Amino acid sequence: MYIDSFKKIVRQYKAVFFDAFGVLKNSSGMIPNIGDTFEYLKEHNIDFYVLTNDASRSPSQLASFYQRNGLHDITVDKIISSGMLARDYLRHKVKDGRVAYLGTKDSAVYLEAMDLITIPISKLDLQHRKTHEIRVLVLLDDEGFDWREDLNKTINLLRRTNVPVVVANTDKTYPVSDDEIAVAIGGIAGLIEHVVGKTFIRFGKPDAQIFNFAFQHINQNNNYVKDDVLMVGDTLHTDIIGGNKFGIDTALVLSGNTIPDQAEFYIKTTGIVPDFICESITS
Amino acid sequence: MYIDSFKKIVRQYKAVFFDAFGVLKNSSGMIPNIGDTFEYLKEHNIDFYVLTNDASRSPSQLASFYQRNGLHDITVDKIISSGMLARDYLRHKVKDGRVAYLGTKDSAVYLEAMDLITIPISKLDLQHRKTHEIRVLVLLDDEGFDWREDLNKTINLLRRTNVPVVVANTDKTYPVSDDEIAVAIGGIAGLIEHVVGKTFIRFGKPDAQIFNFAFQHINQNNNYVKDDVLMVGDTLHTDIIGGNKFGIDTALVLSGNTIPDQAEFYIKTTGIVPDFICESITS
Amino acid sequence: MYIDSFKKIVRQYKAVFFDAFGVLKNSSGMIPNIGDTFEYLKEHNIDFYVLTNDASRSPSQLASFYQRNGLHDITVDKIISSGMLARDYLRHKVKDGRVAYLGTKDSAVYLEAMDLITIPISKLDLQHRKTHEIRVLVLLDDEGFDWREDLNKTINLLRRTNVPVVVANTDKTYPVSDDEIAVAIGGIAGLIEHVVGKTFIRFGKPDAQIFNFAFQHINQNNNYVKDDVLMVGDTLHTDIIGGNKFGIDTALVLSGNTIPDQAEFYIKTTGIVPDFICESITS
Amino acid sequence: MYIDSFKKIVRQYKAVFFDAFGVLKNSSGMIPNIGDTFEYLKEHNIDFYVLTNDASRSPSQLASFYQRNGLHDITVDKIISSGMLARDYLRHKVKDGRVAYLGTKDSAVYLEAMDLITIPISKLDLQHRKTHEIRVLVLLDDEGFDWREDLNKTINLLRRTNVPVVVANTDKTYPVSDDEIAVAIGGIAGLIEHVVGKTFIRFGKPDAQIFNFAFQHINQNNNYVKDDVLMVGDTLHTDIIGGNKFGIDTALVLSGNTIPDQAEFYIKTTGIVPDFICESITS
Repeated sequence: MYIDSFKKIVRQYKAVFFDAFGVLKNSSGMIPNIGDTFEYLKEHNIDFYVLTNDASRSPSQLASFYQRNGLHDITVDKIISSGMLARDYLRHKVKDGRVAYLGTKDSAVYLEAMDLITIPISKLDLQHRKTHEIRVLVLLDDEGFDWREDLNKTINLLRRTNVPVVVANTDKTYPVSDDEIAVAIGGIAGLIEHVVGKTFIRFGKPDAQIFNFAFQHINQNNNYVKDDVLMVGDTLHTDIIGGNKFGIDTALVLSGNTIPDQAEFYIKTTGIVPDFICESITS
Repeated sequence: MYIDSFKKIVRQYKAVFFDAFGVLKNSSGMIPNIGDTFEYLKEHNIDFYVLTNDASRSPSQLASFYQRNGLHDITVDKIISSGMLARDYLRHKVKDGRVAYLGTKDSAVYLEAMDLITIPISKLDLQHRKTHEIRVLVLLDDEGFDWREDLNKTINLLRRTNVPVVVANTDKTYPVSDDEIAVAIGGIAGLIEHVVGKTFIRFGKPDAQIFNFAFQHINQNNNYVKDDVLMVGDTLHTDIIGGNKFGIDTALVLSGNTIPDQAEFYIKTTGIVPDFICESITS
Repeated sequence: MYIDSFKKIVRQYKAVFFDAFGVLKNSSGMIPNIGDTFEYLKEHNIDFYVLTNDASRSPSQLASFYQRNGLHDITVDKIISSGMLARDYLRHKVKDGRVAYLGTKDSAVYLEAMDLITIPISKLDLQHRKTHEIRVLVLLDDEGFDWREDLNKTINLLRRTNVPVVVANTDKTYPVSDDEIAVAIGGIAGLIEHVVGKTFIRFGKPDAQIFNFAFQHINQNNNYVKDDVLMVGDTLHTDIIGGNKFGIDTALVLSGNTIPDQAEFYIKTTGIVPDFICESITS
Repeated sequence: MYIDSFKKIVRQYKAVFFDAFGVLKNSSGMIPNIGDTFEYLKEHNIDFYVLTNDASRSPSQLASFYQRNGLHDITVDKIISSGMLARDYLRHKVKDGRVAYLGTKDSAVYLEAMDLITIPISKLDLQHRKTHEIRVLVLLDDEGFDWREDLNKTINLLRRTNVPVVVANTDKTYPVSDDEIAVAIGGIAGLIEHVVGKTFIRFGKPDAQIFNFAFQHINQNNNYVKDDVLMVGDTLHTDIIGGNKFGIDTALVLSGNTIPDQAEFYIKTTGIVPDFICESITS
């Protein structure tokens, strides 16, 4: 397995898409010396964006996190999240009525800015048949509700009404500390989908729609072609296969989900082959 | 679709396996006039057993329910539950150590009667590395624990230790009222299995092991062959396909999960064909 | 279930995406009186495109078919096929080496026009280790090879080399007469993927990438927004869910896969809800 | 990973179930020195049986193979195959009519001995509606038919008639040489099931029914309890999980599917833990 230097390979590109967790940060905070890499990108005029499966916070909240951690270059226009796609879906497909959701109040605020009326599943009254006002159900975050009560309520809602279900983050889990993970809303969505037998609408890597959304987003003020862009991620099944399929080059970093010892084995067994493998983006 | 009279067809058999929910009882209580059917079976010397995916209560607790509802013929020796198979597994494969579980305290009492030391996931200390004493994890019931906290804890336990996971009830959901269902422990098991990527050991219909266990159980004092036995159930995917595969005859009743209007359609699309279709066991 | 008139609803849009099979044609040939609908579109200045999961023929071959059948408006620039996406992938991700394929010689000709050297699996020599020259495997068509011999050969190729596999048509089956279907290359791809355990790259509806490709294609000379476009198809799981997710309006027609009697039932059980339901595009 | 000596551990048991491929034989022939192990078993009065997913040949044909290769102790009564379970199913559930099959003429002969009239899919006339005489479809072997023609015919048969489908070997692949595999009928069954959307009846490891059948078979003339029996196999997903669930002890051998280097990794990621790990049954 040949290991490339990130700084060496990145110079072949005009823009980079960075996955967030495992690439820019981990459960201990920011990846050490990451500021140097962003200096390096600036020096070489390489544009960058953060492409993240996250619907729990708005792009400006996500950007604030990086600002607070000293990465001042990561401004709100640099953030592309799966939550933005959920919002885009609602804009096009939901004209009136209410949007039911699972998630924190904060995660819903971002949707409310669109003049949609949101209601958490916990506040929904299944008995008095107000469910006909619901136009769509959006799964935003694994926090902010009682799992047992509200998942059962969600399942009964979906048996009574036939509304589309939007999953705004496809990840099954996320890390909460060095050696612990938690089930993400994408994992919970799988449980509900399996029980009710309906087909949900999922946004986030590896799905093509987020790559396409990102590509259009970065080309609002630029003129990049696919060969100009590199996707950098720590997960074969989301970042790398998604980037490969979209037609851009891909680099796997070993600073997150994919442990150096097992990278070669996983690449071989999954058939998901990155164009490059790097220790981290500081290498 | 030809509808048979249950009382007419049952006379061809020496013994009957009844599914519980949707056959003997529903969310309103016992199926009306069901006492007559049990009188009829007695008159015609037809033996019967209840074959149920239930690990939340012991066979004697399950029998008490029928006793309290006037079905005095349903004694503890007439009950065959998926919980009994989980117990059988533990007897053969777990000689010492502790058994971790998800479920109510009551559901664990049944296991404790075997001299195994049980510990609910909620009381397990992941940090102080007592997890090496755990020999098996048993999923018993959807009640008795905090879903969010304890499911996340379960997932982290399974990442640290490599113990077998036994699912003592394969059902995804169960009815809680006329028009509401709840996620059963079998549905929750699916979420955990999907997230950790391991293969669990599942007991309950349609799996052959419960049919075989039941067949051996009834032949402790009898000498039935497979052609003597009829499986009666309301669910194609558990009762009917399981009975068919085991080699016994099957009757679908329309008093539960399978709505009369859609029975023909579901039989056609699933390819699961019962030998008989009856309105209910009182028909 | 409310049935809309296609001609009435289509006037709200500036452009239409038509699925081919079940919408424009069926196993008996073109849908009767379909010429009138195309006249009607022209009169009302409504643009249209054919969006098809087909990699067995080039866009110009596909267009010729419609021309021969009297639909002279369907010219090559009106065709958007999943085969075009496979070609686009190869253009971006495969710079040299050989492309192995399953399919007819004809289906490969379309790829060859890109200066890639193609080789059918049947001509590949697994023994003499020429497999290292293969850069990608493309699944194009269910015809043109011996299934038993070449599928086994494909599986052994994928065990030896780690090349990406592109599936250029996601459909599992296609109709061959009024009452017969055949397994499509998408179905065969599922068998291979299941056996080798690798993740393939699939192009075609309902995947977002073909909708995005189509949207960019039609906007080379236009300036449509998503609200201007209607997707028309006969299949909930490809045309309708794909269109919904992409954010365009959708109309289900009952002239193909989805039988009028069962449309309401399937919409309810799948949770895939079209914006409109029409008898056919001639209604 | 602790490696046990097979000869040492086997002395704790009264009977052994051996998987065939990867345990007794491999693609080069019998495992070297295997005769000594059978001598050893005889000396120590340890009974043994061959438990194999194979429906392509009758038990007597399977026994002949071992006889010809010098293992004279493996007589027909020592063979337990998934084909025997398919035959048992037909005996109980199919009283008249015809049995359609995919497989060689030889594989069907074994079924014919039951007075059932068999017809290969290739000879079935879908057009003249003789399909109503078919009572069951049995998938026996991957050889003996034209895959493209007969699989498409099978799919159309299953769309027209609603007969149960029995899969008499659950294996997805089998080895044909040192470094080549072929798709087995269990893999083909997966393709058909996926395309027609029906639920098939599968016999063979890891399903409980073959273990139960074997246990009853060996107890016709013995009185073994589960603790007396050891399952020995080379595959975690069939031999080991199946034996574990059935409640008997299990030993993984490293002479077949599971490569020594990866055994520990696979045990950890699948959660399927054998009671013992041995180099081979000659160790």
